[in-house]
Order: sequence, then C-alpha cells, then structure tokens
Amino acid sequence: MPKAQAKRLVRDLSTQALQKRVGIRQNLSPQLWNLSYDNSALSLHGVALHDILEQYGSPLHILNTEKLEHNAHAMMYGHQQNQQLSVYYSYKTHPVPRVLQLLHSYGVGAEVISPYELWLALRLGVAPQKIIYNGPAKSDESIKIAIDKEIRLLNVNHCEELERFAKIARQVGKKANIAIRLVFSKGWSGQFGLGVDTGEALAAYRQALTMPELNVTGVHCHRGVLFESLEDTANYLRGIQDFLDTLHQELDFHPEILDVGGSIGIPTVRSLSNFDKKLSTTFRIEAREPAPQSYPSLEDFADLIAKQLTDYFHRVQRPVPELVVEPGRAITGNTQFLLSRIVDTRATSEIFTYGILDAGVSVAEIVQTEFHQVFPLTQKTRQSEELYRLVGPICHMGDTLYHAWRLPKLEKGDALAIMDSGAYFVPEARAFSFPKPGIVGLESNGRSFVIRQSDTFESLIHMDCLAE
Amino acid sequence: MPKAQAKRLVRDLSTQALQKRVGIRQNLSPQLWNLSYDNSALSLHGVALHDILEQYGSPLHILNTEKLEHNAHAMMYGHQQNQQLSVYYSYKTHPVPRVLQLLHSYGVGAEVISPYELWLALRLGVAPQKIIYNGPAKSDESIKIAIDKEIRLLNVNHCEELERFAKIARQVGKKANIAIRLVFSKGWSGQFGLGVDTGEALAAYRQALTMPELNVTGVHCHRGVLFESLEDTANYLRGIQDFLDTLHQELDFHPEILDVGGSIGIPTVRSLSNFDKKLSTTFRIEAREPAPQSYPSLEDFADLIAKQLTDYFHRVQRPVPELVVEPGRAITGNTQFLLSRIVDTRATSEIFTYGILDAGVSVAEIVQTEFHQVFPLTQKTRQSEELYRLVGPICHMGDTLYHAWRLPKLEKGDALAIMDSGAYFVPEARAFSFPKPGIVGLESNGRSFVIRQSDTFESLIHMDCLAE
Repeated sequence: MPKAQAKRLVRDLSTQALQKRVGIRQNLSPQLWNLSYDNSALSLHGVALHDILEQYGSPLHILNTEKLEHNAHAMMYGHQQNQQLSVYYSYKTHPVPRVLQLLHSYGVGAEVISPYELWLALRLGVAPQKIIYNGPAKSDESIKIAIDKEIRLLNVNHCEELERFAKIARQVGKKANIAIRLVFSKGWSGQFGLGVDTGEALAAYRQALTMPELNVTGVHCHRGVLFESLEDTANYLRGIQDFLDTLHQELDFHPEILDVGGSIGIPTVRSLSNFDKKLSTTFRIEAREPAPQSYPSLEDFADLIAKQLTDYFHRVQRPVPELVVEPGRAITGNTQFLLSRIVDTRATSEIFTYGILDAGVSVAEIVQTEFHQVFPLTQKTRQSEELYRLVGPICHMGDTLYHAWRLPKLEKGDALAIMDSGAYFVPEARAFSFPKPGIVGLESNGRSFVIRQSDTFESLIHMDCLAE
Repeated sequence: MPKAQAKRLVRDLSTQALQKRVGIRQNLSPQLWNLSYDNSALSLHGVALHDILEQYGSPLHILNTEKLEHNAHAMMYGHQQNQQLSVYYSYKTHPVPRVLQLLHSYGVGAEVISPYELWLALRLGVAPQKIIYNGPAKSDESIKIAIDKEIRLLNVNHCEELERFAKIARQVGKKANIAIRLVFSKGWSGQFGLGVDTGEALAAYRQALTMPELNVTGVHCHRGVLFESLEDTANYLRGIQDFLDTLHQELDFHPEILDVGGSIGIPTVRSLSNFDKKLSTTFRIEAREPAPQSYPSLEDFADLIAKQLTDYFHRVQRPVPELVVEPGRAITGNTQFLLSRIVDTRATSEIFTYGILDAGVSVAEIVQTEFHQVFPLTQKTRQSEELYRLVGPICHMGDTLYHAWRLPKLEKGDALAIMDSGAYFVPEARAFSFPKPGIVGLESNGRSFVIRQSDTFESLIHMDCLAE
C-alpha cells in the first residue's frame, strides 16, 4: 500500500472513532433568534432573508431591533421588571452609530475606551452623566474633554494616570470624577487595572483620596474572562465586596457608583478549544453546538447582580450605590447575523466539498475561535446533507471559516446565515480585497432600513490621494 | 517561601539560562533602510522623522519612494540591468492607489484577486494587457469584464471555473486568455489551484485545450510558502519545468506566458516560531534578529529565475515564453515603516515597563508573528537601555505588539519606528476604537506628500445612517 494511501486510511479510521466519541453536531433551533423557515425560506418577522439579500446585496449583516430592545431591557430590569442596574454599553464591541442610538433611546449609557469613542458618544448626544471612560491609552486632549464635560466616571487604569488627571483637572479648573480599575487574581491583568491582591489598588485609592483635583466617586472592575455560571458570577462579586470592606475599614471610603464591568457571554456561542479545532481541521469533524439553555439569561444575571450587591450593602449597613454594568457582547451579540452567498463550489477527492463564500476571515474572523451556528437561507429537506469546508474569497490559506459543517447540498448563488455577528465582527472587519458588508435593521413589523451602507469600490479609496 | 515567590524565582532562573542560550538581540543597522541618526534624530533623506510626525500626526506610515523604485527595478532587471522578468505586483499586499500608481509608472503590472482589485487596476489606468486575475472567488460580473477587456491572464483556480469562463466568454463573444493554477506538494493547496502530483492539473489542461471559448496561453503557479534560499527556488522551478515537459509530451502544449508567482521574502523580517513567542511572553526574552545578509537580494532572485528558465527552454529547444513573477511583500514590505507615539508608560513590579503606544494590534497585527525591527526616533546614547513590553491602546489582553524589547528609557510623547510595514499592515488594518494611520511618502529630495489621509473621527462613520 502506498504511504499516502496508508496515511489516509489511518486518518479515516481515526475520524470514525473520534466522531463516535464526540457525537454528531445538532443544529440549534432557529427560534432562539426568532427565525423560522416559512415555505422553506429562512425568515425573520415574516420577511424572507433571501429577499432582503436580493434587495441590498451580499454579504450583509441583519440586525433584529426587537431582540436589541429585549436585551437592553432584560439587563436593566431583570425578571423583576423594575430598574435595578445602570447599563453602559461597551462601544468597542459594536461601534455602529444607529445601533448605539437605539440603545441610548432605551436608556442605556456609553462605556468608551478611546478619544474617538468619547467623541462619538458626545456626537450622538449622550448626556455626559451617561458616559464612562476606560482604557490604558487616554490622550491628554480626551481627558480634558472628559473632565470639562463632567462625565460620569473617568476610570484610572494605572497609577501614572492619577497625576495626569490631576494636572489636567487643574488646567480645566474642574474636579475629575474618578474610579479606580481593580484587577483580581482571576481575569485580565497585564496593562489593565490595579491589583487588589498586590495592594496596588488600595494604595491608589489612598493616594487619590488625598488629591484635591479628584472627586473619587466610584469603584470599577472588569473581569474580561466570561462568566461560566451564576455561581461564578457570585464568587466574582464576593471578591468585590471584600475589597469594599477593606476600602471602608482602611480609608473610610464608600463609593457612590459601583461598576462591576461586563463579561457576560452569549448562550448560543462558545469558545472553540484547540481540540475542537484539531477535530475539524485534521479529522473533518464538526464542532459540537453549545447548550444555550444551560447558560443563564440576561434577566438571571441582572437579578443576581442586583440582589447580591443590594443584600450585601443592607447587611453591612452602608448605602446602596448606583450599580453599573458594562456589557458588550451580551447586549448586541445575538441581535445580528451575517448573510453570505456561495460564489462557487469546488469538489475534492476528500469527503468534503469547498463552499467558497463572498465573506471570509476579513469580516468574520471570530468564527475561527468561537462556535457560531450556520443556517442555509433555503431549507432543502428532501436532499441529504453533505460535508462542507466553508472558505472565504481571499487568496490566502488562512481564509477558512468552517473546516467542517454539514449542510444541504449547496450551489453557486445559495446563501447562508452566520449567527451572532453583533459582537466584534464589525469593529474587527477590514476590506481585504473585498468590500465590507453593510448592516440592515429589520423591525418587528417587517420594515427594513439601512444602518450602515456596504463599502463601495469608490468608498474604499476615499481617503487616498491619487496622482493626476 | 510562598508559592508565588518560588514560582517567580524558578522563572527568573529559567530566563537567565535561556537568555544565555538564545543570546542577546542586536539592533539591525538603520542603514538597511537608508535611515541614519543625524544629531540623535532618526532621519530619512535628511528629514528628521519626529518633524514629519509632528507635521502629520501620530500614528503614521512613511513610504520611502526611492526604495520602492529600487525594488521594482531590481525585480525586473536583476544585476544584469536588462529586463528579464515581467513583474505583476500583488495588489492585495498593499492596495494603496498612489503606491500602485508609482509601481505602474516603473513598468510594473497588476496581479488582482477580486472584483474590487480588478476595478482598481482599471480605475488607475493599467492597460488590460498588464493585468492578471487570480483567486478562488471571481464573480460572474468580474469574469465578464476580464474577458471583455482582454486582460493578460484569467487564471483558473479550480476545474468548475472552466465551464464558467466558457459560458461567460460565449456571452461576451470573445475568447478568454487563461492559465491554469498549479499546486505542488510543497506550498499552499486547499482551495487553491490544481494538483500536479494528483493529475488534476494535466486533466484541466487537457479539458481546457478542447474548449473553443478559451485561449490557453499560460501556466500559473504560486507557492505561498516563502523561498528560503536560491537553492530552494531552483528546486521549485525544476518542478515547474518537469510539468512543462509533461504538458509538451502529453498535450503538445507550450505556454506563451509562464507565471511563477511570488513568495520572495523580506531580508529584515522573519517568521517568529512558537519557541520565540514563548521566550518573549513567559521568559521576557527578546526575539533574535534575522540575518539580512544571508537572504538573497531581489537581483539575485531575478537573475536566478530568468537564467534557470531561459537555460531550460534553450536546452529543450522551445521558445522562451514571457517570464512573469507576482511579488508582493518583496517589492513593498521594506519601503514603509510605521511611526507611533508613547501615550503613557506604566511601571511594574516585573523586570519590564509597559510602553503604551497609540498604534496596536488593529494596525500592526503582523508583528505578533513576524520579527520587525523597532527604532526609537531619538537616540539617547548615554542612557542605559531598559526592557519594555510594548502594547497598543485597546482595552483587550491581545493588544500586545512586543512582549519584550530593549529600548532607551521611554517617556510619554516619545516615538518609535516599526520597520517593514509595507506588506499586509495596511489591508489588515481596522479602526478598532482608534483611527487608522495615514501614509506619507518621502522622496529622496526630502519632499513629503500625502499618499493616504489618516482616518478622522467623521470619516469613521461616513457609511453610517444616523437617526435624525
């Protein structure tokens, strides 16, 4: 037996054995996104998505405004139906003006991390009292604006910022409303925040409280690593409570604002492990779907955070501060999906066929590291499914979105929906050889409207200076 | 001894041992890029770069037009100083109209991989006979334009394209000038090209030659994996020669155009291995510099390709076809560099200090996987160097450009030059929370001119539809 053939036989046997162990991927229910197949056409709010794609062109993001409003409300009000939390949306996650305007109209504030995002929030008419400014790279100019406009919180990322804030506050002639960003042993650290365990955070509060230019009003933290469960969240909050006790005991400090950050996941998305990746690349085995029902809902998170912290403040007999959360992906992630057309298919001598899409890694890179459900826009029930390798349009080996995904037989011109494109797809997108998709909103009454236009060829060179 | 302290001691000892084995990174000479320190100021063509940065704003790419012209000439003419090769520049590598216009003015053609790039080449006035169209995702409309305009080569990526090309050629009423993309056992395969070893490539030529709508004029290949040496290149070319023999013997076919693709590296850049990455992230040891003098020059590559192929055709007594190369990074990579300012520094209890830059992973992602030299814009010889971790401005753990790099002591406002930003930096850049840098050209007479404007806050939302 030739070596190549032997190698292949071994791989095929391994695939069979591993497939048995891993199990077969099941499609998540379209209803999780309010989608349904009406006369075989994947539809939202009664509108067939292939009609929308025909009208606006491919590729294209669709935003479900009903779900956006639902998520914002769920986070603010929980199951209780009375406002418990102040929600500041993390602009960086999905910095699309029309989407931000919608969120602000529901009562959501702005969490910004750059001079541009601060400008955008003010440009969109967000009240300064509804803006929180985070991040390690604040320019002097943006700090000046933040202090002058008296935004809700200007958060101290590292000690060196205390003197910078104070100096600029003196120039402006106003006090800066600040919180200090805490980091705990679990979660992001590196260039972000000041360690609770190392004593840095307490030292920073001690210093800040002596500085007349600073109005120390808040406590800020952001874990970065997503919450696995309500129990995990409860433990994280207990760590914050312990530090609040320390602040009270050591410095007699009690915050007016307690900002616990974001880090709430999307139930229909999960991180792919290296094992998942190996299974799909080498053994052509599909990544298994997550179990959305096992992840807490936004209402569950809202109620837990509000109840645990309120109970804590009552117990220690200190006033309940404004309770702030800064979700990003949890609010917008599952409100949007990406439609993309098959430009061509390519048969192989392998067990899979290539489906070449008009959207690839340059606009959907995240699907290489996260599970995102794919639906065909047209249901073809009577045809058996085939295994596809879904690649993007770029001339580069890295442009593979799904190494293995079963679908009804695809033909040139067919289209797919890649779910949960409302977090990090848009800000990470670049026009690598192909224009970036636009975004169309779809209301519950079936009305569609343009949120962001797709790139045109001319728009891709609008900042260029050509020779005569 | 507490566990954390013990862990740290072990790591510090490991660092010392590994550092000894790896050796100390040496700065590459600024002269490799025509740069020099004049009165301590890093300068190009007599212009201090901090003055340029002051004038145009940070961050900013600088393009050295003299080096661009040199590279284009070197590739076309080699040491021989007579044109041996037709050069078609890979648009996707650095799709900047003014840079492309300069290249075209030197006699370079366009290698495009998308409808947009085909449009751009025609928009820039490139003659259709100087355009080659590759890639797996050609739209019907772009194929139609390519055939109608009679571009030099429309390359077949996979078998299914033969029928598509033929059908569209019939509609247009003209023949399509085609080549078939070959893949060899070493190099990219996957969705690209047709296997020589598997017999797919020969079968495709056999089929194409029977199709009256196709004018089969060329042979195309592109290895993807960079050439390690001239010897490596010579072996690759011998593989092509063998297939040309087969085409001649089996099908009596001889190409008018032989397109051997790109895959020539940049002498001052090298891929970082996982070991390099581990050394810098965990052990804070700088990646070692490449040895630029050990990599062949563009002239060396040009002469080898021209001579070996010409000798081959003479030997087999068949006419020498037009010899085409499609370099990307080799032409533009080292003609550009990125200037970036330190927004802030942050001391740590570790052996390194954070330098927070105004340009990060969203505009320079490639430095995470390739060695790119960094120079300070101001030489501070009398001060001892310190170890820095250079991070970008974004609120994300992944925004680290250099986990370890020694530099003279940095202060807020200082600036750095990250070398070799002329390949893939620009097309991969996205405005994640921060505007993308512009590009300024610097001529040998010291004159500067804007090639691409930096994003403005307003330009970042120019495709958005805001509510009233």
